[in-house]
Amino acid sequence: MIGRKLGARLAADGAIAGRQIKSVHLVDVVAPAPPAGAGFAALCEALDLAAPSTAAKLIAARPDVVFHLAAVVSGEAESDFDKGYAVNLDATRRLFEAIRHERDRAGGVYRPRLVYASSIAVFGAPFPETIDDDFLAAPLTSYGAQKAIAELLIADYSRRGLFDGIALRLPTVVVRPGPANRAVSGFFSSIIREPLSGREAILPAPEATQLWCASPRAAVGFFFHAAALDLDRLGPRRSLTMPGFSTTVGEQIEALRRVGGEAAVRLIRRQSDESSAHIVSGWPGRFDARRARAFGFVAESSFDEIVRIYLEDDHVPAVA
Amino acid sequence: MIGRKLGARLAADGAIAGRQIKSVHLVDVVAPAPPAGAGFAALCEALDLAAPSTAAKLIAARPDVVFHLAAVVSGEAESDFDKGYAVNLDATRRLFEAIRHERDRAGGVYRPRLVYASSIAVFGAPFPETIDDDFLAAPLTSYGAQKAIAELLIADYSRRGLFDGIALRLPTVVVRPGPANRAVSGFFSSIIREPLSGREAILPAPEATQLWCASPRAAVGFFFHAAALDLDRLGPRRSLTMPGFSTTVGEQIEALRRVGGEAAVRLIRRQSDESSAHIVSGWPGRFDARRARAFGFVAESSFDEIVRIYLEDDHVPAVA
Repeated sequence: MIGRKLGARLAADGAIAGRQIKSVHLVDVVAPAPPAGAGFAALCEALDLAAPSTAAKLIAARPDVVFHLAAVVSGEAESDFDKGYAVNLDATRRLFEAIRHERDRAGGVYRPRLVYASSIAVFGAPFPETIDDDFLAAPLTSYGAQKAIAELLIADYSRRGLFDGIALRLPTVVVRPGPANRAVSGFFSSIIREPLSGREAILPAPEATQLWCASPRAAVGFFFHAAALDLDRLGPRRSLTMPGFSTTVGEQIEALRRVGGEAAVRLIRRQSDESSAHIVSGWPGRFDARRARAFGFVAESSFDEIVRIYLEDDHVPAVA
Repeated sequence: MIGRKLGARLAADGAIAGRQIKSVHLVDVVAPAPPAGAGFAALCEALDLAAPSTAAKLIAARPDVVFHLAAVVSGEAESDFDKGYAVNLDATRRLFEAIRHERDRAGGVYRPRLVYASSIAVFGAPFPETIDDDFLAAPLTSYGAQKAIAELLIADYSRRGLFDGIALRLPTVVVRPGPANRAVSGFFSSIIREPLSGREAILPAPEATQLWCASPRAAVGFFFHAAALDLDRLGPRRSLTMPGFSTTVGEQIEALRRVGGEAAVRLIRRQSDESSAHIVSGWPGRFDARRARAFGFVAESSFDEIVRIYLEDDHVPAVA
């Protein structure tokens, strides 16, 4: 989803990190649609990053910027141990190794910018009231562990000059356009998206559940900003908790009420799911994203703003 | 070195975690000597943990306790990128996977205690004055990154019940008996050990260099204590910074002077090595190891005590 929106913005801007885009290579397990109206060549391919030869193939053209967003999401990485590690750790590492080996072939002059989608799932309870940039990564899911491992690899490869990497710890991105994926966090979006389109949504966790969130538009902005930033200024710590704001499921529902009225709110069906509620309760709800803000990353500050962005960018009205 | 001392203490105690030892399997890249006076069967083998089949072979006998101390040390992991990752990450993970697969073969009832030698090299500057148990792991060496990754794996495998693991972040262990290995931290030991045996030692870093240290005897004690502890009490955070105390190279030299006199101190040859000094300066010097102490781990509190332990346990007098 973020990949698709990133492609659309690449097409809209035609430039990244102050340079005109000559070509992009968009890859997913199903072939991505070419971004509409792009003024550059777009190669869109269905490739499995978990296949041994994919990473080398991707890097052979020596891209200047690599966005790595591919992942087995939290719920699936928890239910399928092997698949989670195969994609989120092994395939990710193979991508990093492909860059290192391409760099060797280039005589050491190839050193791309690598922007990685990490997650606040690298953190696990117990938390202080507010999590600052010095707080330990102690994940409570395999997904979080795999993301935290990728962060350590990115810091080490970057420190050694093998690529110039940054890991963006994304907040919960809401409101995601449909259809739902298997991320445990999916309901944070569906309880807004589905009622606004006249459909029922299931809420598996309590209204007091806190989340740290930002819009898809803000998330795409993080990737663009990260591609352009002078990362030497970060020093060796290459993982940044992205800005967002803290809200609760209850406050989400109030924002929904303001836009969609009581009829929309009535479409939320409470159906407690212990496993999801447990996982989500282990996620942190409040951060001091001071470092990221100091480096110029920006996000929204209210859930009303997030709903407005959803209505502008992604809303599909209910068919009467 | 710690492995050898661990073997000696297994033989001396004849029991671990409150149970009599029936057999031990000691493995290193060169065959370990059988511990003297052991009242149990000791299989001592030269095996390379980096070879694909070694881990499964080690775990097939379903040991109750697995001590994993094998590692490419910091200096070598920094100079040989591939070897460091092959041993410290890949072979370690293969060991964990071997346990998981053996557990499957055992119908889910096999769940050994796994005690892993991690390191305070998982931390990297800038530091607060004192590093507490909530401080982030931001290593500045590949060795530290590999140890931090192993910690994340141990927490995840333990959380999922695949084994019952703990990672001990060892202080700098001094005074190591000779000969020197390729650890960057080796000089912290050799500046005491070599002069006390009438030999010259090289000091590559300034006297103000801080270290967080414990004796080899205390380190062996950590492993024994970790094997016996009820790890459920730790919850999901399975990495513990071990107790020790903070000292400086200058204070080490003063302790040497008290035991060996001016003659011993004169055998320290200052030969600044920028690479070593840089690595060591990125290591933390002071911890609040509150959590480990609360769980009953103990260490020394002065360098004089450490020198005394070296003289008792390992000192080889100079040949006149």
